[in-house]
Amino acid sequence: MESTGDSTRIVRFTKKDGGRAMYGMWRDDHVRAIVASPFEGMIVGTSELYGVDEVKLLAPCLPTKIVAIGLNYRDHAAELGMDVPEEPLIFLKPPSSVIGPGDDIVLPEMSSQVEHEAELGAVIGKRARKVSRENALSHVLGYTCVNDVTARDLQKKDVQFTRSKSFDTFCPLGPWIATDVDPSDLEVSCRVNGEKRQSSRTSQLVHGVAELVSFISHIMTLNPGDVISTGTPFGVGLLAPGDEVVVSVEGIGELINKVTEG
Amino acid sequence: MESTGDSTRIVRFTKKDGGRAMYGMWRDDHVRAIVASPFEGMIVGTSELYGVDEVKLLAPCLPTKIVAIGLNYRDHAAELGMDVPEEPLIFLKPPSSVIGPGDDIVLPEMSSQVEHEAELGAVIGKRARKVSRENALSHVLGYTCVNDVTARDLQKKDVQFTRSKSFDTFCPLGPWIATDVDPSDLEVSCRVNGEKRQSSRTSQLVHGVAELVSFISHIMTLNPGDVISTGTPFGVGLLAPGDEVVVSVEGIGELINKVTEG
Repeated sequence: MESTGDSTRIVRFTKKDGGRAMYGMWRDDHVRAIVASPFEGMIVGTSELYGVDEVKLLAPCLPTKIVAIGLNYRDHAAELGMDVPEEPLIFLKPPSSVIGPGDDIVLPEMSSQVEHEAELGAVIGKRARKVSRENALSHVLGYTCVNDVTARDLQKKDVQFTRSKSFDTFCPLGPWIATDVDPSDLEVSCRVNGEKRQSSRTSQLVHGVAELVSFISHIMTLNPGDVISTGTPFGVGLLAPGDEVVVSVEGIGELINKVTEG
Repeated sequence: MESTGDSTRIVRFTKKDGGRAMYGMWRDDHVRAIVASPFEGMIVGTSELYGVDEVKLLAPCLPTKIVAIGLNYRDHAAELGMDVPEEPLIFLKPPSSVIGPGDDIVLPEMSSQVEHEAELGAVIGKRARKVSRENALSHVLGYTCVNDVTARDLQKKDVQFTRSKSFDTFCPLGPWIATDVDPSDLEVSCRVNGEKRQSSRTSQLVHGVAELVSFISHIMTLNPGDVISTGTPFGVGLLAPGDEVVVSVEGIGELINKVTEG
């Protein structure tokens, strides 16, 4: 038995040759399965070890909802010609849009302008309902990378963000949930085919993680595994078939997906 | 063993004295539990019978998402001063907003203008991904009443509909899923404290059920239990603590909820 140390990388995975999805702890050369899920309180390792080459990583959690934030970096609001809202501007992405690291982002026929949005995601560990800003981070299990893929043409056409953000495969999550990370000043960046497209720091967020968790929890109960995606910085841009998109968040890791035609 | 006849009213319930949630078939004087869930193919009754006074009805399904439609009756778009969109205008309500018949709609502190919206809801029975309009209704298990409760002041302020539609208790569903109902010309109405506030017919929908299921399934995969709420007609209005709201859909039944202060 092994419990969490200072920082743990929690993965969801299957063996490459199939079988059930499990939660585990990612080490440099192996994955150790954990008892049940990381949402049951203490994270307890089992004696089951897998080589990192033996496993396929899945999205690290199964959210009942993804609550995302619009226009939460001043530079991104400016590039869209929009004002920064005084309160957090929330929208939802459906669970059906979630894919894991290594899965393909599929461009839908309905759009001809699909763009990447690199974001820091907070994963809820403990049910949160009307929590204060001071207590908010104790409801967060850890952090992951999110690509809030967006059909920009449909976002502009509809005004409502929902359709443009909700296509299947439009919510890559991963590669893991990093616990014990301070979210207040991390680099968030995006590279497409090796070229840096987005780069900023979470210190530039208009509304920080604790404020977001508290604010959202006064609207809707947040459940274990739910994801809050904190918004994207300047530099969003087009994705084309064959592209490789890498979302990186300092202290977490890299979320890599390829783009294919629908 | 008993299988579906022409029309079945599928309920989710617990015994009033507690215990696990079950699915059943509602008859005039009893509820017959069914094997597993209505989403496994054939609906098969067990020999377990309960008196209607012995049970508490729950929301009749557990959606992974609720896809709702804005401005889908011409008269309601006109009362909001908005144009009817040429394509369906979709938004999401989170699973955490769902309550059942008899549960309280709780007015949140953040809003001072919470309104009722009576709607016909279609409940997905079979996974739907890129289905044609012709095949769409074969993916619908049946129909239920939805109250798409909305904080109108926040809807106007945010422009995005999400916050205003997503508060806990803002998605009453029920009282059951009625199968084998033709959704094309049903009266949809709302009464508050006995006074009729909304009344129209689904023949007035800009985008009908088959079109909506097909359209949405080209954006996101619809899973069994997911709910499509088809939009509300003219006559939305304020809810106050103590109010009793009744959403009625012809051929389905009445969804009754009380309103309380948060």
